[in-house]
Amino acid sequence: MSIGKSIKRVDAFDKVTGRAQYTDDFQINNSLVAKIMHSTIANGRVKSIDISEAVKLKGVIKIITCFDVPDIKFPTAGHPYSLDPSHADIADRKLLNERVRYYGDDIAAVVAKDSVSAERAIKLIKVEYEEYKPLTSVEAALNESETPIHEEYPDNILAHTSYEIGDYEKAIQEENLIFFQGEYETSPVKHCHIENPISYAYAEGSRITVVSSTQIPHIARRVIGQALGIEWGKVKVIKPYIGGGFGNKQDVLYEPLNAYLSLAVGGRCVKLDISREEDFVSTRVRTAMKFKIETYVRPNGRFVARKLVLYGNKGAYASHGHSMVSKAGHAFKQTYNDEVATKADMYSVFTNLPASGAMRGYGIPQFAFAIESHIEDIAKELKIDSIEIRKINSMKLGFVDNQIKCNSNGLEECIEKGKKYVDWDNKIKEYKNQTGPVRKGVGMSIFSYATGVYPISLETAACRIVLNQDGSVQVQMGATEIGQGADTVFAQMVSEILDIPVEDVHMISTQDTDITPFDTGAYASRQSYVSGMAAKKAAIEVKEKILEHSNFMLKLPVGNLELKDKNIINKETGEILASLKEVATHALYNKETSVHITADVTNQCKSNTFSFGVCFVEVEVDIPIGKININKVINVHDCGKVLNPQMAAAQVHGGMSMSLGFGLSEQLLFDEKTGKPLNNNLLDYKLPSIMDTPHLEAQFVETFDVSGPFGNKALGEPPAIPVAPAIRNAVLNATGVKFNVTPITPQRLIEKFKEKKLI
Amino acid sequence: MSIGKSIKRVDAFDKVTGRAQYTDDFQINNSLVAKIMHSTIANGRVKSIDISEAVKLKGVIKIITCFDVPDIKFPTAGHPYSLDPSHADIADRKLLNERVRYYGDDIAAVVAKDSVSAERAIKLIKVEYEEYKPLTSVEAALNESETPIHEEYPDNILAHTSYEIGDYEKAIQEENLIFFQGEYETSPVKHCHIENPISYAYAEGSRITVVSSTQIPHIARRVIGQALGIEWGKVKVIKPYIGGGFGNKQDVLYEPLNAYLSLAVGGRCVKLDISREEDFVSTRVRTAMKFKIETYVRPNGRFVARKLVLYGNKGAYASHGHSMVSKAGHAFKQTYNDEVATKADMYSVFTNLPASGAMRGYGIPQFAFAIESHIEDIAKELKIDSIEIRKINSMKLGFVDNQIKCNSNGLEECIEKGKKYVDWDNKIKEYKNQTGPVRKGVGMSIFSYATGVYPISLETAACRIVLNQDGSVQVQMGATEIGQGADTVFAQMVSEILDIPVEDVHMISTQDTDITPFDTGAYASRQSYVSGMAAKKAAIEVKEKILEHSNFMLKLPVGNLELKDKNIINKETGEILASLKEVATHALYNKETSVHITADVTNQCKSNTFSFGVCFVEVEVDIPIGKININKVINVHDCGKVLNPQMAAAQVHGGMSMSLGFGLSEQLLFDEKTGKPLNNNLLDYKLPSIMDTPHLEAQFVETFDVSGPFGNKALGEPPAIPVAPAIRNAVLNATGVKFNVTPITPQRLIEKFKEKKLI
Repeated sequence: MSIGKSIKRVDAFDKVTGRAQYTDDFQINNSLVAKIMHSTIANGRVKSIDISEAVKLKGVIKIITCFDVPDIKFPTAGHPYSLDPSHADIADRKLLNERVRYYGDDIAAVVAKDSVSAERAIKLIKVEYEEYKPLTSVEAALNESETPIHEEYPDNILAHTSYEIGDYEKAIQEENLIFFQGEYETSPVKHCHIENPISYAYAEGSRITVVSSTQIPHIARRVIGQALGIEWGKVKVIKPYIGGGFGNKQDVLYEPLNAYLSLAVGGRCVKLDISREEDFVSTRVRTAMKFKIETYVRPNGRFVARKLVLYGNKGAYASHGHSMVSKAGHAFKQTYNDEVATKADMYSVFTNLPASGAMRGYGIPQFAFAIESHIEDIAKELKIDSIEIRKINSMKLGFVDNQIKCNSNGLEECIEKGKKYVDWDNKIKEYKNQTGPVRKGVGMSIFSYATGVYPISLETAACRIVLNQDGSVQVQMGATEIGQGADTVFAQMVSEILDIPVEDVHMISTQDTDITPFDTGAYASRQSYVSGMAAKKAAIEVKEKILEHSNFMLKLPVGNLELKDKNIINKETGEILASLKEVATHALYNKETSVHITADVTNQCKSNTFSFGVCFVEVEVDIPIGKININKVINVHDCGKVLNPQMAAAQVHGGMSMSLGFGLSEQLLFDEKTGKPLNNNLLDYKLPSIMDTPHLEAQFVETFDVSGPFGNKALGEPPAIPVAPAIRNAVLNATGVKFNVTPITPQRLIEKFKEKKLI
Repeated sequence: MSIGKSIKRVDAFDKVTGRAQYTDDFQINNSLVAKIMHSTIANGRVKSIDISEAVKLKGVIKIITCFDVPDIKFPTAGHPYSLDPSHADIADRKLLNERVRYYGDDIAAVVAKDSVSAERAIKLIKVEYEEYKPLTSVEAALNESETPIHEEYPDNILAHTSYEIGDYEKAIQEENLIFFQGEYETSPVKHCHIENPISYAYAEGSRITVVSSTQIPHIARRVIGQALGIEWGKVKVIKPYIGGGFGNKQDVLYEPLNAYLSLAVGGRCVKLDISREEDFVSTRVRTAMKFKIETYVRPNGRFVARKLVLYGNKGAYASHGHSMVSKAGHAFKQTYNDEVATKADMYSVFTNLPASGAMRGYGIPQFAFAIESHIEDIAKELKIDSIEIRKINSMKLGFVDNQIKCNSNGLEECIEKGKKYVDWDNKIKEYKNQTGPVRKGVGMSIFSYATGVYPISLETAACRIVLNQDGSVQVQMGATEIGQGADTVFAQMVSEILDIPVEDVHMISTQDTDITPFDTGAYASRQSYVSGMAAKKAAIEVKEKILEHSNFMLKLPVGNLELKDKNIINKETGEILASLKEVATHALYNKETSVHITADVTNQCKSNTFSFGVCFVEVEVDIPIGKININKVINVHDCGKVLNPQMAAAQVHGGMSMSLGFGLSEQLLFDEKTGKPLNNNLLDYKLPSIMDTPHLEAQFVETFDVSGPFGNKALGEPPAIPVAPAIRNAVLNATGVKFNVTPITPQRLIEKFKEKKLI
């Protein structure tokens, strides 16, 4: 029995010793190297490119410009393909772009024998631009645009959707309602995975292979096919171990270009390694959002009517399209919802900033910052305890929104645990009437989070298991290990069903779309839930086949055997009748009926459920110097059954750290006039280091969600959600000052404290 | 429809352009290099090894001697594992051997940073031996042995088996029988594949991976497990493209040592590349055999009673054991058989020469040389036409020997074609009474050959097929492409069943035992017959699933649809209802029932059938200079349905060339006293070059064998059988001189012609 145990990561040893092979470790003889030339304007058009000097450079093999590439626009979003064209991802991207939409857009590529030659060649390329006014904010894009960023969207609005639940106008007629409104804003931040995007491409026969650090090999295969205008079966994508993705590698951005460059040099292997500086601007960022929230509340704190207007800054390309903004907007009717009249308008707006795409939490960290700030402001105004007002209004068991059902709900217990950890009631009292330059406060926030993408998109996954002669198995998952520990959890699941040790479950970590069972990939906290069910089903099928062969071998009737501790036993008496190894060996080698026991099972998931969690923090704010110290911080999660406590805690630690940066220090900065990135490197971009990180406490409330393969539900993304708003609320409780824009940097603290006359 | 067409090899482009990856192309960072130290005596014992100087050498990482390795004996034969211990291969081999059994035995191994250091270290190792008399012939091994080569076999006889059919003693009582006897002998020859044995080994987690140029990855995995004493599931074997094997890579000889060496250096990657000089003596050779045949014949040429005594020179290790000798001995009752009293005694004898193992034809080229010489001698004596005597005595349709059934028999038509090509009747007359120094002659030989190893061993194979969104498929076969074109033929089979072009069938040529369906590998001309049936069955299952999904998608009842030319059609009217691409895409992405169409099918083969063929040659013998010119040579084969005429012809050309060398020039030479190899290199070992090779004519007689997946039966090995005896018989017909020992070298010609007073 492995589920629920802190099994050591299956890849721990190889990762620690350096044996684990990442994309850059795949040594391919005589690889060429490609480098990309990026635009030095944010909005405009390439008029001409002069490569005459560059091509003369020794070592340069081929230069491809935006004028050479096929006139095919392709989608980059790592979403399942949809048979419904109206549900298809926006195809607005070419391999290289003559129409330049952000400072750093890809306009040419050099293939050379080495990276120095490639980089030198880029410096020799001369470009003439036609320049338009850079639109670096949503406001500018809506109001100051002369030439639309994408001609298909004349007003620069990628999408505007809205919904209304109940009768808002009627609901607000109720007497004695108190009206609140607030505006909240989040900034663009970056994933900062350790391994930058990297790929290799080379031809085999009439096909093209791309080895890439991607979260979504099967989707990458399809998008490469779309981008190059070739049949998808002509493309093979291999995903080795990857050094993090956090959603950034859920876009298929450079794999198609790499495939194209290889084909442009006769199928030779070409390596395309994106630098950190490029990654900051030329891949994806977390969507910056602006929220305007209005709430009518009864004096007891009960919400009656709510309204949201939300603008997301998409940046230059659609990437995941309206999805993040839509998800944020729809969350408005989830965590707090019960029979409340609700209205929402959501806008995704193109600007001349780097394209925003998926990032851990997919819109919810932004939304949670807004809503948890807003509810805190209401609580404060109404003098209701922060916990109390959330309990009154939050989601209850049985709630359903668009087929996402609250099958299990440990939120209140999570709150109890978090509350205890920070000694909430005492601290609230203790910190009530503080004066002086250094003040303390406690704050909290809650969230709910769906598991996977059903019913918005298709949820399909598959798993193949092969039984060895010694009773051990190989497991091939289309779902991908991206550092989160998926392989370990899948191994535990198979181990659990077959009742064999995890050491006997050999995970095939490298996906190869030619042979790896289909799965849409690692995103949306879907893997242990959707793909895990595929693993479970495949293991059950293998078990059935083992028992079937045991019946044959032992000449016993069906139904009386069980698999237990690597033995075939008499189900009733527990008597050992044969070892699993004997049966597995017999299956292959007996001359009467040789059978190669495998299972290859598709799981289509048609359910979804909510995870929950809270964050509690205690801060100490040094007002004169604008510094927030985190004294205590805890995340408590209800992710259903905890499959692996140690790894779950690690997942939470990583998410908390990400939310800490989001809340306090991280922001991609651009020159407002030119759109030029100002801090696209790890020195100037303030990712929290270990020195900035307090002890991160991770706790769990275990529920058993009936829809999860082992009672489990989402945990991948949720930890990144609640820390930032909890800090904001703790600062409010400590100082009385509302910080409604992330990150709450020393500069913003000082400015606001000065404004509020605290300094 | 692809079967029967000369489809271009699926790997042609990649092999021609150098894209195809062989073992040595797999670049693994910082690989260490291992070299083996070989004994310089042929029979004895290592008393001591002094590595003190060698270990001091810079670059040397580790030295392992025969005193360090585990005391585990393992079998090297590439046979299916048998659940019956009495049927198990002989385990007589250790990773390194303290008991030295041939000149070149493996006694130590050096792991170093580079091959120069490794080789220099070997020169610094000092060895003391206890030496026994080298037994370099069967006679010496039987008569002059003091210390048995293997203590388990005190008389050096690995096996002696015999059989009797009918009542021999009674049969020979018949009146008017004419008695014939003859002795025939073949020499040890070498496979001479282009790519020498090579492997890499490295650890992953708690497992060991070996990348090897092997014909039998799944068997190699098992034998590595056996040799190292670890569970088989802890071993992974990967087989890239390989540059020929011809049976030599059907032994698992150095993969276990390589795995062991990697583990001895902490799992670091170690490369073990066997040189040509080593390959000649330290891998396997074709078993040299001596035949004594006695035949009682009626005056009309009808055989009545026959007796065979056969001695095979096994060399130092059992390798495939008694199998080759046994197969040769059992063939004695096959090609010529019908109700004839037959007796045979077969001996496999250990000697202090390199171990003999599998080589294309597995005993039958040797046997055919003997029997076809013998029958020719009888024909000559009785003045019966060579063809006539064979027709009288050869196998007829319906014959069964040990479950191998003659389901189809194109032998007589083969003879007709061959006869026509060399203008037999006229040439016989024309060359009747020649004199002078240069004489011409025609000769012929026939053979029969079983397909696969049923019922001697298990015949099991598996195939997995994965359907892509564009309707193309990937095919994973456990059976291996070793240069013979297996991948192309499998692709044709799948193409045929699914009615899609071969270009849409993507063969996964690299086997990886973790995920590749189980198959025992490439040997015994079994693949198109045994594994091909797995491919056929898997394709049928995929087709059924495609039609099943088509029914679902089109909302049509089952049974009215067919797959045709990449479309789903109305079976009755031929109307196109959907493209295969639409169905394949719908299968994965429809939100109602997403299904990942694959099949993973085991085929256990419980049939066997005979292939047939003939060779006709016309020679011109220059008596004074001892030279044989081949004026014309043709092989005509009945291999059932010809799956790919061009590739079949190529297969025949290769086999004819091999038989030509076997008959005329190839022989591994050893110093009789010391057992030291004398010509273990491609300069001194006389492999025929293109300059020695006449036009090789390959023709076919197509039958349809009901037991083959597409009417096909063995073709891989048969072409290597008949050329040598046909040449021998042509020389006999030209000169009247019998050459009963292979190869018929200029030296042997001169000696014999002198003896016969022709010069």
